[in-house]
This record gives sequence, C-alpha cells and structure tokens, in this order.
Amino acid sequence: MVSMVDFATVTPDVIAELEDIVGADYVHTADPELLIYGRDETEDLQYKPEVAVRPESTDQVARVMELAYARGIPVTPRGAGTGLSGGALPVFGGILLSIERMNKILEIDEENLMARVQPGVITGVLQETVLEKGLYYPPDPASNGSCMIGGNIAENAGGPHCVKYGLTKDYVLSLEAVMPNGQVFRTGGKLRKDVAGYNLTQLLVGSEGTLAVVTEATLRLIPAPKYKRILLAAFDSLDTAAQGITAVYRSRITPAALEIVEQAALKAAEEHLGRPVPYSDAEAQILLEVDGFDEEAVENDLMKVGEVLMEVGALDAMLADTPAKERELWSVRKCLGEAVKKQAAYVECDTAVPPSKVPDLLRGVREVAAKYDIRQISYGHAGDGNIHVNVLTDNPDREEREKKLQPAIEAIFDVAVSLGGTITGEHGVGCAQSRYLKLCRDPVALATMRAIKDAFDPKGLLNPGKVLEAKVPPSLPVAGA
Amino acid sequence: MVSMVDFATVTPDVIAELEDIVGADYVHTADPELLIYGRDETEDLQYKPEVAVRPESTDQVARVMELAYARGIPVTPRGAGTGLSGGALPVFGGILLSIERMNKILEIDEENLMARVQPGVITGVLQETVLEKGLYYPPDPASNGSCMIGGNIAENAGGPHCVKYGLTKDYVLSLEAVMPNGQVFRTGGKLRKDVAGYNLTQLLVGSEGTLAVVTEATLRLIPAPKYKRILLAAFDSLDTAAQGITAVYRSRITPAALEIVEQAALKAAEEHLGRPVPYSDAEAQILLEVDGFDEEAVENDLMKVGEVLMEVGALDAMLADTPAKERELWSVRKCLGEAVKKQAAYVECDTAVPPSKVPDLLRGVREVAAKYDIRQISYGHAGDGNIHVNVLTDNPDREEREKKLQPAIEAIFDVAVSLGGTITGEHGVGCAQSRYLKLCRDPVALATMRAIKDAFDPKGLLNPGKVLEAKVPPSLPVAGA
Repeated sequence: MVSMVDFATVTPDVIAELEDIVGADYVHTADPELLIYGRDETEDLQYKPEVAVRPESTDQVARVMELAYARGIPVTPRGAGTGLSGGALPVFGGILLSIERMNKILEIDEENLMARVQPGVITGVLQETVLEKGLYYPPDPASNGSCMIGGNIAENAGGPHCVKYGLTKDYVLSLEAVMPNGQVFRTGGKLRKDVAGYNLTQLLVGSEGTLAVVTEATLRLIPAPKYKRILLAAFDSLDTAAQGITAVYRSRITPAALEIVEQAALKAAEEHLGRPVPYSDAEAQILLEVDGFDEEAVENDLMKVGEVLMEVGALDAMLADTPAKERELWSVRKCLGEAVKKQAAYVECDTAVPPSKVPDLLRGVREVAAKYDIRQISYGHAGDGNIHVNVLTDNPDREEREKKLQPAIEAIFDVAVSLGGTITGEHGVGCAQSRYLKLCRDPVALATMRAIKDAFDPKGLLNPGKVLEAKVPPSLPVAGA
Repeated sequence: MVSMVDFATVTPDVIAELEDIVGADYVHTADPELLIYGRDETEDLQYKPEVAVRPESTDQVARVMELAYARGIPVTPRGAGTGLSGGALPVFGGILLSIERMNKILEIDEENLMARVQPGVITGVLQETVLEKGLYYPPDPASNGSCMIGGNIAENAGGPHCVKYGLTKDYVLSLEAVMPNGQVFRTGGKLRKDVAGYNLTQLLVGSEGTLAVVTEATLRLIPAPKYKRILLAAFDSLDTAAQGITAVYRSRITPAALEIVEQAALKAAEEHLGRPVPYSDAEAQILLEVDGFDEEAVENDLMKVGEVLMEVGALDAMLADTPAKERELWSVRKCLGEAVKKQAAYVECDTAVPPSKVPDLLRGVREVAAKYDIRQISYGHAGDGNIHVNVLTDNPDREEREKKLQPAIEAIFDVAVSLGGTITGEHGVGCAQSRYLKLCRDPVALATMRAIKDAFDPKGLLNPGKVLEAKVPPSLPVAGA
C-alpha cells in the first residue's frame, strides 16, 4: 500500500482560502457531494476527496492550483465523472477540482471551422450546437450525452465514428492549461498548422489530467456529412465476421462506423431492452455506417460493403431505411455498456489490436474465459481494432471477485499485447489499468514518461496515483453495493 | 555568441570507435562530404560536422548515441537535408548522424492500411509504392521527391494536400526511437487507437530531432481517391481572392488543396519557367483541387467551388481537363521555391494564421515590405492559413543583407502573431527561427518545453542549438557564395 504521508491535508484555513477563491457556494466539504465526487463510471471504486471545488474561470483554477502547490495538497481534476479507468478519482484525497461550471462554448468560428470551448462543455451539446450550422465534431464516446470535452481531452476519448474521423486528439488544435504550480499557458491558437516548438497540445491530450489542467480548447470542426446509411450483418462465426472487417478494408471504402457485437452481448442487450434484437442468434454481428455528401455515392458505398460482407459469408444483412430504424439498430450497440452492467459485477478490458487481429483477440479471450472459468462479453469498434472485453463473475464478495478476475484480466491483456496490441484503446490508464501499463510499454518508454511527469509536476501533486503509478490506496466500500 | 566549451570534440579514438560501429566506409572525416553534411536548403547557412556517420540499423544508431553520450559529443541527426529551418545543421560540430542508409520500406500492411518504414525512406518513393496498391500517404512537402520520412517526422512536415488530409503527425501511429543516451524504445504498435500512457509519438513528431532519433515509423495509409479535378481562378485583388477562400470554407466543400499565389510570385515563376503562365497579370490566383471516390460527386464539387469563386468576384477560372493540363497548373505552384531562389538572396518566413486572416496577413506583409524597402513574394497553403512570405534584397554583402532583412522579418512575424498566428506553420523552428519562437509562445510554455528537453537529454547533446536555443555559432562562409 502506498503511504499518504507525503501529501498535506486540507486544513480549515485551506478551506477558507478556497472559499475566497471560488466562493463558499462552490466549496463542498461534506457528503453526499464528497461521495459523488469520489466516484466515476468505473466499477467498484469509491474514494473521497477532502474538499471539492467548482471554479468558474481559468484564473480561479490557477489560484486553486497555486494554493494546493504551496501547501503540498494533491489536486484531482474532474469532468463529468463518466470515465472508465478511474482517471478522475481522488485516490489520495486532497482537493477535487470539478470543471463543470466552466461550460461555455466561447466561439463557433464558421469561417475557420473551429470552436473555442471551456472544458466543462458537454460533448453532445457541442455536437448539436455545431450541427445546427452544418458542422460536425466527430469524437463520440458512448457517454457523449453527459461527458465533457475536458474529460474527453484528458482521456483522448474515442467512439464508434473514430474509424473514419479520428480520435479526440485529431480535433484538438490548441489548449489553454494550468500547470500544477498555478502558471497558465497556451499551446497555440486557431491554427490548422503550427510547428513552433514541441507539441504540448498533443502531449496534454490523453495525459489524463496528470500534467496540467485544461481550461480552454480550440477544436477543429468539419463539414457535417449530409447522408448516412446503416447496415447490420449477421455471421455464424467470429472468423467470418472478422473476415468481413478485413474485406471492408480491402474494398477501400472507409466506413463511418464499423462495430462488432458478439452473441453474448446481443443476449445481454435483449435482456436489458426487454425486446428481441435482430439476429440475436448469430454468433456475431457487424454494424456498419457509411456517410458522405453525395446521396448516390453513399448509397453505392452501402451496396458495395453489403455485397462484400455477403461474399465473405454473412448469413444475412439488413439496411436501415428510416431514421427510426437507424436509431433502433444503433440502440442495440449503444445499450451494451448498461446491459453488461446489469448482468453481474464486471471489469471491462479496453483492448485494442491491429484491426486484422480482432478474430485472434476474440478467440484468445474465449480461451482465457474457459481456462479461468469466468463469463466474458465482447463488443466494440472492430474497424479500429478496439474491443471492449467485459469479464464477469457472480461472486458477491468483492475481494474474492477480484482474486478470480485478476488473473483472467491479465491473461486477456497478455493476449492483446501478444497480437501487437495495447491495454487501452480509448478509456485511458487511470488508476484501474496502471498496474498493467508495463505489459505494453517498455521500461525506457515508461522512464521517459516518468521524466515528463516530473518535468511538469515535480511535487507529484496533480492527479496522483494515475497512469504511471501502479499502486493506489484501496477503494472504500462502494455506497449501496 | 554561444561557447562550445561544454561539448567534447571528436578525437581519433572516437573515430576509430565509430568505424567499429558502422564500418569505415560509412564514417566521413573530410571534405567534400563534411561540407555537404553541413548544409541543407535553408539559405545562407553552412556549418561543418567533425565527423559524419551513416548507420544502417537501429542498433548502430544506438551504439553511436551511447558513445557520443559517454564522451559528451553533440549529435545532429539528418535526413535528406531538404529542411528550410536549419534543423539538420551541425551548428556545434560533433557527430552528424545521417539516416540515409536506413531506407527500407519494412512492410505495407494492406489489411490494416499501414506501412512500417525506416526513417531514410524517401517520401515520394513511399507514396508511389503504396499508390500501386491503391493506397495514399498524403503529406507532400514540396521536396517529396527527395525528402525522407524521418525528416518529415522530425519537422511535422506539411504540404498542399494537408488542408484536407492533415499533416505528417496525423499519419504517424507509432515510432521506434533512440534516446540521447542510446536507449531504444517504442511508443506503440500497429494500432489505430492506443492511449496507454503519455503520447510520446506525438511529442516526438515535430521535435526536430532534439529529443530522440527516430529509427522506425508505423504510418497510417488511406484509400487513394480515384478522381481529382483542378481549377485555377484569377482575382484582381488579394481581398477578393481571400474572400474566395472563406467562401469555399462556407460552401462546406473540403478541397484537397487550396493554394494562393500572389502576382510577384507568378512573375518569378514566368522568369524561372521561361514561359508565360496563366493569368500572370492577376493580382492573385487560387489553385484548388477536389478529389474523391465518385466521379460525378467530384465533378459536382468542382463546379460548385467554381461557382462560389466566380460569385465572390473571380475574374476568370479555368479547369484542367487532362492530366497534362493538371501537371501544368501545378507546375507553376510547385516551382515557386526554386523561382524565388533565382531572384535574389531571400529569407522565407513560414507564417501561419487562422485561414480567414490570410488577407490581413498579406496586406500586413505588403506594408512591412514598403516600410523596410524590401521586396516580398508570397504564396502558400491558403486553405491552412500557411503563407510562405519570402523577403528579398539584392545586397550582395551577407552582413548588410541580414541587417536589412532582420527587422522586416521580425515585423512580418509580429503581423502574423498579432493575427493569432505562428512563426512557423510547417518548416520548423530549427536554428533559423529559434530567436523568434518567443514571439508566439509564452514563457510558461517555453519553460515547459525546456523541461521536456532536459528530461530527454540532460546533457543537451542531441541536436543542440535548435528550437529552444536562440543563439548559435555564426555560419561559415557558404561554399560558392
């Protein structure tokens, strides 16, 4: 267990100073707030900050950071708390810094196709706002109705449409951020090209709030495609489905989404939705979207990928011919996170491999499940090779559960890494995966990351216990569990 | 002037060790090699390494680095020497490490649309090789016939097609690299998604060979568009041309290239090519390319942007209807670097601004030229806001030339920065722009970059005098100048 003696605690005079900075209404020192701010969407984890603050400006963030730095108090930045790797959990207590009040879309620049936003803007709100102007901000994690741009940047969030449009990192042009010691800096401007010095923007994206606190982002937008079509194909084997994915790649058509769902996930979706879902007896399904600006070209692409999938041996395929049908097909895929959660206690392994290795990954996962006698439910962004493998057990005791799942999780990551993969494609390392990071990063890379962390945060106060630190204090009992 | 006393010199026993590592045939200690390895395409700069080595493997690079680190000798990595900011110049002597022999395309993975290459692969060779398989590697600096992927990665090189397809950074998925002390690491694999730890890949891209030496790259490829069409439009004022650019953005059509050329550049092109070029009396031209996979959709896009440009007030527009005509139209734009070089001694300012600010930039540049009594020739990637402003003077004396151009260059960068721009959009900082970096990066950002440099290279031996260091030893007289 890690000792907490290196960190100072939050004393009443610190509380008073925090109240001075952000206003007493935005400083929280009691439950239920502290419990809420001590959870995210990662299963089974509960921590508790000593105090939670909700600044409304860069200046307030800077002053909170400066205070914490002077006192040696850890600070954990937090967006909407929708993360799946514990990145926003205050594992060492200290100050929880919520960016939820910094939720303004500062500018939508239609001439340059850019937006400037505060980090607390909800991703889906930004997407809807720019769509009204015919523009598109593609990164779409499953939580986009509630997650925040700041959290997306911290985790380099992905989503189904990344296969065509790229990840959060591909849309972040520049940032304003606050260093652990409270100093504010900018990494660039409203520029599509800028190579003046090291790429601090891209270093911060995906750094999980451990290097600096992002207080403003300049994002790239693109013209919103006018037409999209969706296709669902059923397969009687994983291998055939995977061949379908490769065949789509070979066809040189770039789908806007290319998702795979295994049978166990379809069954979980049926239970969760309380209705039959299409092709739920199939061993696997592929959900594929094509989009573009020319209706006929999109239709042609759809027909071509349909043919390609039938040629490799799809059992059947259906097209969505109405928006309602489109939503229905997507609803199965989108409910899976919730559906799995209902099944049993689970841990989600956010594996990613070269896309052509997805069948090997899924086969390997099945072997691991059999060997360790656990259930597994897999689905994900097949086109990107990013498969969410959920391992489940019905054991009600947390410690026993962990003991049972732990070796299976490690074995699944071993399979992914042996295929040239990684332990996390889009969820981040956080505190939940940090002990596995060494499986996919060599000692020199890890030492280099550590040196970068020390360069930004010599006192180790910003979001401690994440990414590079394999040991964190044990979770508190989860309220209600 | 910077003292060189901190660096050790290359002694005969170091030469002997280098010969042991890479073989005597690949260790150069005399002119003309040393003079060649002491130049790049940046005007007016000539340095000389103490020794130049040409390793053929990662292991040899690692051993050279380890040796240099142990001895305290500076190392300057070099690709093809086509850089425009002096990034590959051995300004402090020491060891010049050429990656030219590491020129293998290791793998073209058609299933995953990726290539693995050594850094010495010529960009155009990679592009032709993948095109034969229907694939596309878009970054296309003007030098793509001779520049190398390693140099492109070091500088995060751009080119005309970045406006649609993105920069080098958008195609680098992972790297193998050698630390200044000789340790080898990898930043990831053949993965489209990987958020395991800090993004060392993107930190290395554009770090100009000052943090580590890239020895292998995994690059993303995309399906090659099947159809492209080109349009040239003439304008009687810069403002109208710039309105055309904005109008194209507003049309929500994403051009594959969107270039602007000012009249002075057209005149220089005519002189250089020895033939009339289309619309050379126009105040400005826009060269625009559209591409895609559906012939009719591409044609429709072309017609629409043509209409859009005529509506804002283009004098005339012509379409290229044959591949020969396409090459002819592009040849004017592509010859400009050479054409300007013939005119007089020049310095190129690689400004970039928000695309909508291009007219303000061009107007500001004209005012600067008038005020400082210099000639200027501007052209560039208008769609990205990246304008190459060349300032020229006929004064044959180098020192006097510098004295005359220096304040004009600074004034031009001031204009760019005042418009929210940067001092370099795609050429890099190198040693030629390092004194201006503080114009567009705040002290906190600069200090953070310095801390990152120290984290990678505590002895400051890798490519010293670049990016963050504003002072370098004076250039030697340029051979033949």
